[in-house]
Amino acid sequence: MGGAILPDLGAEILIPVCAIIGIGFSLIQWLLVSKVKLVPGGRDAAGNNSVGKNGYSDYLIEEEEGLNDHNVVLKCADIQSAISEGATSFLFTEYQYVGIFMLAFAILIFLFLGSVEGFSTKTQPCTYDPLKTCKPALATAVFSTVSFLLGAFTSVVSGFLGMKIATYANARTTLEARKGVGKAFITAFRSGAVMGFLLAANGLLVLFIAINLFKLYYGDDWAGLFEAITGYGLGGSSMALFGRVGGGIYTKAADVGADLVGKVERNIPEDDPRNPAVIADNVGDNVGDIAGCKEIEPALKKQLIISTVLMTVGIAIVSWIALPSSFTIFNFGTQKVVKNWQLFLCVAVGLWAGLIIGFVTEYFTSNAYSPVQDVADSCRTGAATNVIFGLALGYKSVIIPIFAIAVSIFVSFSFAAMYGIAVAALGMLSTIATGLAIDAYGPISDNAGGIAEMAGMSHRIRERTDALDAAGNTTAAIGKGFAIGSAALVSLSLFGAFVSRASISKVDVLTPKVFIGLIVGAMLPYWFSAMTMKSVGSAALKMVEEVRRQFNTIPGLIEGTAKPDYATCVKISTDASIKEMIPPGALVMLTPLIVGIFFGVETLSGVLAGALVSGVQIAISASNTGGAWDNAKKYIEAGASEHARALGPKGSDPHKAAVIGDTIGDPLKDTSGPSLNILIKLMAVESLVFAPFFATHGGLLFKIF
Amino acid sequence: MGGAILPDLGAEILIPVCAIIGIGFSLIQWLLVSKVKLVPGGRDAAGNNSVGKNGYSDYLIEEEEGLNDHNVVLKCADIQSAISEGATSFLFTEYQYVGIFMLAFAILIFLFLGSVEGFSTKTQPCTYDPLKTCKPALATAVFSTVSFLLGAFTSVVSGFLGMKIATYANARTTLEARKGVGKAFITAFRSGAVMGFLLAANGLLVLFIAINLFKLYYGDDWAGLFEAITGYGLGGSSMALFGRVGGGIYTKAADVGADLVGKVERNIPEDDPRNPAVIADNVGDNVGDIAGCKEIEPALKKQLIISTVLMTVGIAIVSWIALPSSFTIFNFGTQKVVKNWQLFLCVAVGLWAGLIIGFVTEYFTSNAYSPVQDVADSCRTGAATNVIFGLALGYKSVIIPIFAIAVSIFVSFSFAAMYGIAVAALGMLSTIATGLAIDAYGPISDNAGGIAEMAGMSHRIRERTDALDAAGNTTAAIGKGFAIGSAALVSLSLFGAFVSRASISKVDVLTPKVFIGLIVGAMLPYWFSAMTMKSVGSAALKMVEEVRRQFNTIPGLIEGTAKPDYATCVKISTDASIKEMIPPGALVMLTPLIVGIFFGVETLSGVLAGALVSGVQIAISASNTGGAWDNAKKYIEAGASEHARALGPKGSDPHKAAVIGDTIGDPLKDTSGPSLNILIKLMAVESLVFAPFFATHGGLLFKIF
Repeated sequence: MGGAILPDLGAEILIPVCAIIGIGFSLIQWLLVSKVKLVPGGRDAAGNNSVGKNGYSDYLIEEEEGLNDHNVVLKCADIQSAISEGATSFLFTEYQYVGIFMLAFAILIFLFLGSVEGFSTKTQPCTYDPLKTCKPALATAVFSTVSFLLGAFTSVVSGFLGMKIATYANARTTLEARKGVGKAFITAFRSGAVMGFLLAANGLLVLFIAINLFKLYYGDDWAGLFEAITGYGLGGSSMALFGRVGGGIYTKAADVGADLVGKVERNIPEDDPRNPAVIADNVGDNVGDIAGCKEIEPALKKQLIISTVLMTVGIAIVSWIALPSSFTIFNFGTQKVVKNWQLFLCVAVGLWAGLIIGFVTEYFTSNAYSPVQDVADSCRTGAATNVIFGLALGYKSVIIPIFAIAVSIFVSFSFAAMYGIAVAALGMLSTIATGLAIDAYGPISDNAGGIAEMAGMSHRIRERTDALDAAGNTTAAIGKGFAIGSAALVSLSLFGAFVSRASISKVDVLTPKVFIGLIVGAMLPYWFSAMTMKSVGSAALKMVEEVRRQFNTIPGLIEGTAKPDYATCVKISTDASIKEMIPPGALVMLTPLIVGIFFGVETLSGVLAGALVSGVQIAISASNTGGAWDNAKKYIEAGASEHARALGPKGSDPHKAAVIGDTIGDPLKDTSGPSLNILIKLMAVESLVFAPFFATHGGLLFKIF
Repeated sequence: MGGAILPDLGAEILIPVCAIIGIGFSLIQWLLVSKVKLVPGGRDAAGNNSVGKNGYSDYLIEEEEGLNDHNVVLKCADIQSAISEGATSFLFTEYQYVGIFMLAFAILIFLFLGSVEGFSTKTQPCTYDPLKTCKPALATAVFSTVSFLLGAFTSVVSGFLGMKIATYANARTTLEARKGVGKAFITAFRSGAVMGFLLAANGLLVLFIAINLFKLYYGDDWAGLFEAITGYGLGGSSMALFGRVGGGIYTKAADVGADLVGKVERNIPEDDPRNPAVIADNVGDNVGDIAGCKEIEPALKKQLIISTVLMTVGIAIVSWIALPSSFTIFNFGTQKVVKNWQLFLCVAVGLWAGLIIGFVTEYFTSNAYSPVQDVADSCRTGAATNVIFGLALGYKSVIIPIFAIAVSIFVSFSFAAMYGIAVAALGMLSTIATGLAIDAYGPISDNAGGIAEMAGMSHRIRERTDALDAAGNTTAAIGKGFAIGSAALVSLSLFGAFVSRASISKVDVLTPKVFIGLIVGAMLPYWFSAMTMKSVGSAALKMVEEVRRQFNTIPGLIEGTAKPDYATCVKISTDASIKEMIPPGALVMLTPLIVGIFFGVETLSGVLAGALVSGVQIAISASNTGGAWDNAKKYIEAGASEHARALGPKGSDPHKAAVIGDTIGDPLKDTSGPSLNILIKLMAVESLVFAPFFATHGGLLFKIF
């Protein structure tokens, strides 16, 4: 077994240094974004004369007729603060409710894990080596609970920061759009980068600190330490699930509601300030989508390819200097020697599979290619064919990503068993900061467009933000592709860890205990999606009624002389999402507990495998179907080709059909689909945390009969 | 081990007797249906005076204004023969193309199975008992090929007979509708019974004869005999798949195309004779749906409950007199003693799980309950919310059936291993004749309505046939629920037989070979659905263009003074379905071959399990979503409650939204969804047939690397 060139201590230093560099980089980006001033021109904040300029010393390339003055900037600033306040108030309300659930769950973790050895405080001989002494189960219970709460807290902080950054960047992007699409893109993308690097680095740093603090107690009991630290993942994922579901319902209720009355019934543009649901919609983008142009897509794509190539080289170097030339891993009881180049290949296969998934997603959701154009074309015969084609597109888009995931699994498992899969997941996630940046870019652009419309800026500005937004749909889909691909790999390795920790030797599909788990597990994503889609639908119905009521009862609203009551719409979205996020959240968090306690670890294994293989498909197809519908609509609106012009313009029958598809796609791509990634990861990590409890006390039903 | 009261010979006689009784019963029903005469009144065929009467001596309860004469009957007869001719010509064309494919596949079966022992003609010591002599693999190859062709032929005959019966019954149902909804129902349901009992008995009889003929060669080599007879299932399923996919594309291309131009653009009623696609649509019902009212649903439901209760009693008696009190089965190498009451419970759990699935399906697809009413209500805000609610309904409707299937699997496996699952499948299918009857009733009623419209009969007649048809949607969904539930059990037991025949001892999800199979298998139903949905969409687009062309170029068509060119529309549907059925058919039939040959039996096991657990969910949700949309539309049209009237009438905005949902549901419920049952069964039975070949020569890729 060869030694590594870089000693252990090097890695101990390297990790926090990387995290701090990431945070530093994001702060620099933030500084650049902040140079776009949200104060009127004439004199900037420092009192310097800057007539005819805006922000940092670039001249506006054109003058907004009668609007290029104090008023428009002030208006943007006003709208921005309304959105930011709405988002902050929603997140606080949400965190209050989820906080109670999380506390209750923390108590469960403590009680269940503590009960494994009857709350004994005595150290025990280790299961893997009876000559060594291990910390008691009670310690695992305490530290798991602590790391669970820490993970949840980190997730809350990340979500809050993300929202703050997005609402900071949206109006600035709008103002930069006055100088051209390029400037606006840079602002939106830099803000995305702030978020991507800040969140990735923040998560890494907290985890690093937690591990090192836990080590003070655990000493060389590595197994105990890492069992306790799995709580961090559970806390983070649980919080992320509620955030995704709650935010997803919030944003899509507002979006669907606003679109249905505004675009379809009243024929007023998207984000028109007369629409009472418009502020709720824009708030929603910042709490739900903090997740995803014709000359812009290639730029984002290049970014991804460059990241992947650089990462491959970087990882090759790291494998060579930081890893021993070969080492031994345990594979369900047997030993296996892994060479460092094999481990490099595991990372690389994950990394490149991610890129392939990204490319396929782009192909199926960008309106530069035939699939979306075919969907747009099918709008000629109405909404029904649009929906049929869109659903078929989503189903088809699953094929290649699944093969890519299957190949990564096979290669990495063959080289280094479950450890190889974890490493491949790492590979796919190694471009996470870029991925998050690309992802966050979407809602910022969407909001920028909304602010331009509400501030009454000219249609040229709106066209530019629309271009940014169309690219955002594709990049959001790419981000979701990465998320689901890596979620599959992460879940599989967590599943492997669970099986190992629960002391199961095999998961045989031909035993009834496993098979019933498999088929019920494959059903869970449907159950979950039924809940979230219905929630969005019901909340949207309420929103529609309120918007209609306001149009019918507020005199002068449609003429633009009276102001709508934005607050009631915000309240409808808030109430609906808070109320509706609990059942799907509970379904995901309680299923592993119920199955583990009543049916035991074999059935739970089946459930995890079933949910994984079924959830991946629904998640990919839902994201891509939704993305394709959105861009088919934008393709018709933009009218950039003869074909597109034949289908348009806005308000034509094909365009109306496209709007219907777009609306249906909203809950698919922004609520159900992306929540499923979290569902499969969360169930796996939760099973892992509770594995010792299930192995000791689980399977009650089979014990009784 | 106790002996059975009924000796073996009894069963040998009982089976053909039952089959013949079934055929006899169906002939009696046919005789009753045939009493409705398709010749004008005044004088019937025998020359008796029957003025004011129709068919067998019932007076019409009302007079059709100016239509209650020779003309209407002649018109109905004309339309019926046009539909029948269209259907016959389509089936002949279809069988020609599929015939070539099936012949090629038969040659493959012979070559692959023959090669297992290098085409040796020598008998061999049996693998399960070296002291006994077994027939050579070449014999299995020959007899499997013969039984494959026999199965295909039986399926062709059944499909053809089914179509003939349906086209015989449709106009008769229309004429009976003049006497009231009850008479029409009896005619449609009797015709369904003809089909149900005839097909079930026919299949049983051919299989019985084949087994007895094969026994002349095989003697006491039971294993060899039953290996050879699996080809019968493969042939039947393959033919059924092509029939389902081809017919499904045919009918839905015509249906969607006719609806889009007729109902949405031209605002003419469904089945209006001015619509050029109307004959193609009605032909389609007879070649695609022969698989699949407010006071009518309870009647059908009662039929199902009575069948289930009687069957339970009957099976209890049969278990007691025909089974030994206990016997030994083999469970993957170990022996297991099964008592006769345990086997009875296996059948019963399957039977009652089927009933539960039926009830749940009814609840989610009948417009008598809140789920469909909610979907109808969501049409108030347009097509988008209708689609969102409909998809959510379909997802939700999966939950209880999956639990019912899981419980059946667990109970029956615990009592009698894989044999128990097969027996539970038998239980669920034991009401198959009733199920088929209920299923076939749907398209007959649908056609009856079409004929009433085309023959220019009054709206009262049409209302009655509509009521029959609405019940037909629900019963079709129930039939599909049974089909998919039993397909899950049948596939699982075939899967078990495959694993046993391929000499695999376990299917461990934690091995990469199996896991990649599992995730790719779970993807296959998506791939398949993408193909079939896109096919329907494309064919419908072509149909829409042709229908529009005819409306625009044939003078007097919309005024009803000129006749449309039905033949071109029939040709579009025929060409599209013939061309488009090959790729999805090939996907299903080639996947087991490719996976088995290149990746081997472990990966194939994973593929089968994955396709099973994923396909079941999509099939159930697709069927129920489609059924619910159809009935939500009918709910608004019927306007039977205050709520329904508030959403209507026909042509209102909510109704238009409902029509869009109905159209989207067409390919889901009649093409993709029901084909998936066949997909999972077919892949399992094909793997079983080729198992010895894969075990000997398969897994090339892993052998090379």
